Amino acid sequence: MINPQRLNERIEMLGKITEVHEDFVGGVTRRALSSEDREAQGLVRSWMEQAGMVVRLDPAGNLIGRKEGLNKDAEPVVIGSHIDSSENGGKFDGVIGVLGGIEVVQHIMEEGIEILRPIEVIAFCEEEGSRFRVGGMFGSQAMTGKIQPEDLEVRDPDGISRREALEGFGLNPDEIFTKAIRKKGDMALYLEMHIEQGPVLDAEGIPIGIVKGINGRYFGRITIEGQANHCGGTPMTMRSDALLGASEVALALEEIALRYGAPAVGTSSTIKAYPGSTAIISGRVELIGIDIRDLDNERRDGMLDELKNRSKEIAAKRGLKIEFDDRLKMSSALSSQHIMDTMKIEAEKMRIPYLEMASGACHDAQYMAELCDMGMIFVRSTGGSHNPKENAKIEDITSGTELLSRVAIHYLT
Amino acid sequence: MINPQRLNERIEMLGKITEVHEDFVGGVTRRALSSEDREAQGLVRSWMEQAGMVVRLDPAGNLIGRKEGLNKDAEPVVIGSHIDSSENGGKFDGVIGVLGGIEVVQHIMEEGIEILRPIEVIAFCEEEGSRFRVGGMFGSQAMTGKIQPEDLEVRDPDGISRREALEGFGLNPDEIFTKAIRKKGDMALYLEMHIEQGPVLDAEGIPIGIVKGINGRYFGRITIEGQANHCGGTPMTMRSDALLGASEVALALEEIALRYGAPAVGTSSTIKAYPGSTAIISGRVELIGIDIRDLDNERRDGMLDELKNRSKEIAAKRGLKIEFDDRLKMSSALSSQHIMDTMKIEAEKMRIPYLEMASGACHDAQYMAELCDMGMIFVRSTGGSHNPKENAKIEDITSGTELLSRVAIHYLT
Repeated sequence: MINPQRLNERIEMLGKITEVHEDFVGGVTRRALSSEDREAQGLVRSWMEQAGMVVRLDPAGNLIGRKEGLNKDAEPVVIGSHIDSSENGGKFDGVIGVLGGIEVVQHIMEEGIEILRPIEVIAFCEEEGSRFRVGGMFGSQAMTGKIQPEDLEVRDPDGISRREALEGFGLNPDEIFTKAIRKKGDMALYLEMHIEQGPVLDAEGIPIGIVKGINGRYFGRITIEGQANHCGGTPMTMRSDALLGASEVALALEEIALRYGAPAVGTSSTIKAYPGSTAIISGRVELIGIDIRDLDNERRDGMLDELKNRSKEIAAKRGLKIEFDDRLKMSSALSSQHIMDTMKIEAEKMRIPYLEMASGACHDAQYMAELCDMGMIFVRSTGGSHNPKENAKIEDITSGTELLSRVAIHYLT
Repeated sequence: MINPQRLNERIEMLGKITEVHEDFVGGVTRRALSSEDREAQGLVRSWMEQAGMVVRLDPAGNLIGRKEGLNKDAEPVVIGSHIDSSENGGKFDGVIGVLGGIEVVQHIMEEGIEILRPIEVIAFCEEEGSRFRVGGMFGSQAMTGKIQPEDLEVRDPDGISRREALEGFGLNPDEIFTKAIRKKGDMALYLEMHIEQGPVLDAEGIPIGIVKGINGRYFGRITIEGQANHCGGTPMTMRSDALLGASEVALALEEIALRYGAPAVGTSSTIKAYPGSTAIISGRVELIGIDIRDLDNERRDGMLDELKNRSKEIAAKRGLKIEFDDRLKMSSALSSQHIMDTMKIEAEKMRIPYLEMASGACHDAQYMAELCDMGMIFVRSTGGSHNPKENAKIEDITSGTELLSRVAIHYLT
């Protein structure tokens, strides 16, 4: 059985390792490759070793613990997540997946369970993108060969490049393009446990989610150009108000996503208006973080097409110029049916209720799904995520870890 | 007759007196009580003197030129406007009213026209609020007794208080509460010529506007509180998206103002969203510069009431909290019918087309209307106002000045 007390103590210990900043109250700020990350990696490494694993840091900064099975040539079962945090985030996001994975291996060791395949636990580097601010999931992208030399030259707000930060951890970043990469077939399967970064499980009163897949994502930005004019002197009928155009676009995206229905989501995350004066009609507005997701890539593309058409109508009606800047299109990643089936069977044996659901948030699992079969477990969490109020109960984390353990052992033995 | 060449040369000379700043390209930045203002006041003072006026600076920084008439005890006809500018503004806003006024007096002197009443030309201090950023119209508010001792303690972005700035001009700010104030009946009437800060005259192809009155104004701010959540993980049906609530409020204000019809205007000038992250639903949005104007104060209040009711509905529907912060309610000021009639008669004699219209923008004239009868002339301008593209043709300025002169002489003789 999983040891909830140990798991809880480790979550609390990692949660205390945080950057201190007057603006960050009550949360955890642990940026990738920072001194806090180094301290956290040290602890995680010691716990991996306690669980009988051999530990290494790959050239991309992924911390990898490995315990061999009877057949050393077999592909490993891999459990992963991350220990970096968002700015003033919570102590559960990412952490429970890594510590849960270690707990699984320690359980296997303590119970003397004979495993045929190797098992690995990975703490991926900079999943959150909270240091170099370029989308995150650096470690899993490196492992799938997606990192280019220029990605090492991005700099954090203090001017330190990713290359320099990796070198500061004793790594040779040029080896990212060779030694960090894994090929399709190198892993037997990939499992990840993570808090649900949404309110669904909590609202339904269900502790565990079995993830059907990770939504594909469109990410972009919309610029609306109108006419900045004096707000007193310009009649209503002679305006090209960029803020009103942006309002209609944001509401159109909501209407489209509601009509497509779950798991579709469509969000205009934030907005900036120029000139930003209290007496001037907005001449230019940027809708930043246009984010459209669905488990079905075609549905996601259909939503985006509708939004672009609606924007054309709004632009024509209001005398505005509306331009889309498509920044990212990420395909959805589906969980493997056999892993989901195993999860369901084990959950039923454990008599814990579960919900099958899509993941709206991105995870390293979506890159790992390119290399091998993938499965994910969600743990109920309240207070959202990426903020100090994020909260998962240890009972639920224990249930999730027990399920993770049963599924891993199913494929290991 | 008015001298267009002299008027044009003076506009150009004043337009060259500007603060130099790398972000301000092509425009005029002349903040109240700055060294640029001092230089501009020096020029204007010399032109006033050339026109036969005796010049003084009142304790509020209003530059006042006065030419006596035959009856020294009669109340003066006053022509006013301002010579401070908005940040990187144009060279016509305010300036044509002061220089036009001086031109009227110079014309009277050169033609040897006998005037019964005194005539004054006033360049009001800080009409634009571009230095101390608290709504502007400082000089005309001082003249109508609206300035309080605490208003002298406001500070500009460099930390200099208004008291210090006035003292720097050799003034005794404590005299604002006595010597700067004029009582009802102290002036015979007040005239102001100003560029139209909207596109109406240009769109109609008409050079001159005869102003029916200055719209009353409501100015405030709306805060919309929702729930900041992960934009991937939060289903559409479980959101309280403050940005979408703000979008509906902004569009509701537009709908209300359009329905009330001209001269009503309603604007959500600008917006700020928090936390402002590209992956987080906006938890809080501020609609800044909620600006509602109409010539009829009751209609303006009716529009505001409707907006507040609609906001309540939007808040209830979306699970948001919407709060209004009412900052300012300024009553409309109506032009005197006899002045408008005189303007129309003189414009018809001059055979220049004119439009009767409300002023959406605020002017010193609205405070002067509390003291005496008031009339305003608009001059067609293109390129909006408060920006370097602001542009009024010298032909139109000359027509406006000729009309101003005829109306002033009508009341002076």
